[in-house]
Amino acid sequence: MKLGIDLMGSDLGPSELLKAVVRFLNDYPVDIVVYGSDEPMIHHQRLTWVKTSQVMEMEDGPMAIRRKKDASMVVAVEDCIANKTDAVISAGSTGALLSAAVLLSKPLPSIERPALLANIPNAKQTVSVFCDMGANSSNTPDQLAQFAVLGHIYAKSMNQINQPTVGLLNIGSEQKKGDELHQEAFKKIKALSQLNFVGNLEGRDLLSGNVDVIVTDGFSGNIALKTVEGTVSAFGQLIKEAIMSTFLTKIGGLLIKKSLSIKKDRYDYRKHGGAMLAGVHHPIIKAHGSSDQEAFYHAIRQAYQIVEAQVIEKMKREFI
Amino acid sequence: MKLGIDLMGSDLGPSELLKAVVRFLNDYPVDIVVYGSDEPMIHHQRLTWVKTSQVMEMEDGPMAIRRKKDASMVVAVEDCIANKTDAVISAGSTGALLSAAVLLSKPLPSIERPALLANIPNAKQTVSVFCDMGANSSNTPDQLAQFAVLGHIYAKSMNQINQPTVGLLNIGSEQKKGDELHQEAFKKIKALSQLNFVGNLEGRDLLSGNVDVIVTDGFSGNIALKTVEGTVSAFGQLIKEAIMSTFLTKIGGLLIKKSLSIKKDRYDYRKHGGAMLAGVHHPIIKAHGSSDQEAFYHAIRQAYQIVEAQVIEKMKREFI
Repeated sequence: MKLGIDLMGSDLGPSELLKAVVRFLNDYPVDIVVYGSDEPMIHHQRLTWVKTSQVMEMEDGPMAIRRKKDASMVVAVEDCIANKTDAVISAGSTGALLSAAVLLSKPLPSIERPALLANIPNAKQTVSVFCDMGANSSNTPDQLAQFAVLGHIYAKSMNQINQPTVGLLNIGSEQKKGDELHQEAFKKIKALSQLNFVGNLEGRDLLSGNVDVIVTDGFSGNIALKTVEGTVSAFGQLIKEAIMSTFLTKIGGLLIKKSLSIKKDRYDYRKHGGAMLAGVHHPIIKAHGSSDQEAFYHAIRQAYQIVEAQVIEKMKREFI
Repeated sequence: MKLGIDLMGSDLGPSELLKAVVRFLNDYPVDIVVYGSDEPMIHHQRLTWVKTSQVMEMEDGPMAIRRKKDASMVVAVEDCIANKTDAVISAGSTGALLSAAVLLSKPLPSIERPALLANIPNAKQTVSVFCDMGANSSNTPDQLAQFAVLGHIYAKSMNQINQPTVGLLNIGSEQKKGDELHQEAFKKIKALSQLNFVGNLEGRDLLSGNVDVIVTDGFSGNIALKTVEGTVSAFGQLIKEAIMSTFLTKIGGLLIKKSLSIKKDRYDYRKHGGAMLAGVHHPIIKAHGSSDQEAFYHAIRQAYQIVEAQVIEKMKREFI
């Protein structure tokens, strides 16, 4: 297996991503091609470098892939499409990577809009597949039904769940709840007999782990995930303040510090890989823009497992 | 001032709500009329009881107000409309109270859809006005602009903020972000020169306290608030587990317990009242269905302040 890695455009720079590449090369029997402006300082017999002259910046929008034909991200995606690599991983601009996926790899024939699909950790110490995380700013009922099938395939092949439960993020549990989009999507998903559809979910079910696949339009999905982020940050701040308030609370903080960090670990997004651009012809993985070595390592591992588990082939079988 | 209180249909029953009524009567110089099936066991010279024969149950939908004409909720709202009371507070079914507000009190002439508006606590230890919390399952750009004005008036008169900042909950900070609804709403709100519009917000800004008024369609608002709820519950569970894991962490937990509970207090929804049905002709307050004495007391206080601050008159001035 050969994986293509875009080294440019992430917050922490190429050297941080390279550490993950080397660690991965030592752990897995793969070849890796890295794309970037400078030759890596690291040499490894299964590592090759493709020199590229441009960089996709975070502020680069979807149209930049037309202008920056020699950007590391674009060349990495093109090499994957030309079967020179089996998958691509990038921590660069989401908008640019999305448009590279849509314009170069192309959506599968029956997919109207590709989506960002990822595993999110939950209270049960498992993961739930979440789709769409925000690739789309609006969706149709048919598109939500397509996300349900993509999520189902991912949960089955990547998370090894035989009959994954599928839920629709909505504003109440009864079938009639929600706007027209979600009422229609409910019916369309329910009609898909191969799915184990359990009905509507609410925002409070997001981290419960009660369902294996969470289907959502990109707008609601983006709001929900960023709300989790904001809430975690507000409560982290609160706990910090509570611990720092007196001498005794500081001692208390020291006593629970390790235990708290072990428990918090289950929500560490870095251990769960990045997001897959689901619904296109090739495995394209978006790692978090601020990925450190640990996060990027798991994004590479995710790409490796997607290839191993033939996730794209399974999706193609459903949507071609 | 005379306040009307629906004693029925809440999770903890009339006696819990009555405790709040008595406490409020002792603290404030108001008259209170309670509506319910049984005569209150408590006597107070400023407390009167109106006997009603029916109860609006939690599962009662919007149409129930036509069937249950003698429900405590319906009679309480009708008495307010007949000027027998100055405001109504109910912890009963949200759907039924909403339809009572819309069908009996009626929307203000230029309001298309009333909304649920409430103060939510934030990391800065202040509150932000949030509107719509979920009265609507879908909205138009004009309706979002109306919510912005309702929120502005509420923040100004209830939270004493002179030029409240107003933000639109969306999926990115730039103007072009979001679906058509939110792109159009952005323009409409920006065009309202009396507002201090600061642009788009994201889910992660919800609890930051960086903005005084958060405008959202009811669908996104519902998802965001329930996601906060679910995240807080997942993290509460995590902290509990971390503290309970060993003898030493239990000691640590005891040392920080009080400090943590003081800090957590700032997010205690019970201290911030209920939700106002904004955009109708009368002050109608929805208290949480599971309100205890403390939560219901603050919902009554909120109604009292709405009357004192002439919030409805100010909204009428804007929308008639």
